[in-house]
Amino acid sequence: MSRFFFVHTMIHTTVPIILASQSPRRSQLLKQIGITFSVHPSGIHEEIDTTSSFIENVKRLSLHKAEDIANRCSKGIIVGSDTIVVIDQSVLGKPNSQENAINMLKKLSGKTHTVYTGFALVDVQTKKTYIDHDQTEVTFRDLHDDEIISYVTTGSPMDKAGAYGIQDDFGAVFIKKINGDYYTVVGLPLSKFYTALKNFVAELGYSKGNI
Amino acid sequence: MSRFFFVHTMIHTTVPIILASQSPRRSQLLKQIGITFSVHPSGIHEEIDTTSSFIENVKRLSLHKAEDIANRCSKGIIVGSDTIVVIDQSVLGKPNSQENAINMLKKLSGKTHTVYTGFALVDVQTKKTYIDHDQTEVTFRDLHDDEIISYVTTGSPMDKAGAYGIQDDFGAVFIKKINGDYYTVVGLPLSKFYTALKNFVAELGYSKGNI
Repeated sequence: MSRFFFVHTMIHTTVPIILASQSPRRSQLLKQIGITFSVHPSGIHEEIDTTSSFIENVKRLSLHKAEDIANRCSKGIIVGSDTIVVIDQSVLGKPNSQENAINMLKKLSGKTHTVYTGFALVDVQTKKTYIDHDQTEVTFRDLHDDEIISYVTTGSPMDKAGAYGIQDDFGAVFIKKINGDYYTVVGLPLSKFYTALKNFVAELGYSKGNI
Repeated sequence: MSRFFFVHTMIHTTVPIILASQSPRRSQLLKQIGITFSVHPSGIHEEIDTTSSFIENVKRLSLHKAEDIANRCSKGIIVGSDTIVVIDQSVLGKPNSQENAINMLKKLSGKTHTVYTGFALVDVQTKKTYIDHDQTEVTFRDLHDDEIISYVTTGSPMDKAGAYGIQDDFGAVFIKKINGDYYTVVGLPLSKFYTALKNFVAELGYSKGNI
């Protein structure tokens, strides 16, 4: 059934699709919606500009990552993306120690925060770009200290902004509710992204038997 | 890492945990949060009582399913659960034909509906019960007819209330946003369920090294 399924969902293109991100979650999501792609992580340093909004930040960083790779390729559609976690108007990055991860999770416990994910599509040949973003509110239940410590001990929070993964087993039992696209929290707003990529490919005349 | 992980999350009990549901999604969710259990699907016919609320219906059906199995066991904690999909005050069941599935998806397209999931815990020996529910709003983007037909052709919608699975690849790209627990839509509100089961087990004195 899985074979049959992919025949119907895959976006087929006449040019390569290149993901400018080293996030294994984003690769997994592109695979999930049946896209054939390669990975070339951008070397762009993720710097938040505190004079512009969170939305402008994720859109700008997504575009910078995509353009960084576009400048090194001769053809293809480059996908850039950036995610930030914001609580009480401050950005939580990736934790730099287990203690830092524990403090982030204590901050998130029992409260609602917002996850912003931007994405950019850049066509290398025409320089045409498409940029969008999505945001989702995430509400944690009250966490016990022993739950936080057990989670941090697994190592999973260490490479994730805000020190959690919504798709982790712990994420599943920590999160009381979300308001928005689940996949925006994982790392790419799949519903918006799929439609945007399909239209982008069609407008450029790169389609090859899509639905 | 996965091994290490489960050591920390598993709810260990001195009595068996039995899932009174044949839903492969519910089995998968219990596995995901590290619970050891067996499956004994209840024979209860799922009948909606139109004189009571949607919430009362999913709670009553969850309890009936758990009690049905409890009556046939000598010990253990029985987990019953029921999910309904409601749009414009009417319940969408499992589709009985491909045409029916197509009509359901056309009805959901571009609109918000509500998914109600109840769950019940019954301890066979003490007859103690715990019942709760959760509800999540799901908003579909506008779907194209060819997307709907492609999805129905995969066969996946046929065993699912409302003719879709949020965890399906198509579900991921059809759903614009949700408001509530993602797992309530999959078939069991994991955050509420995990806390409820942990407390239920502790209160009955069945704990064996839980977090």
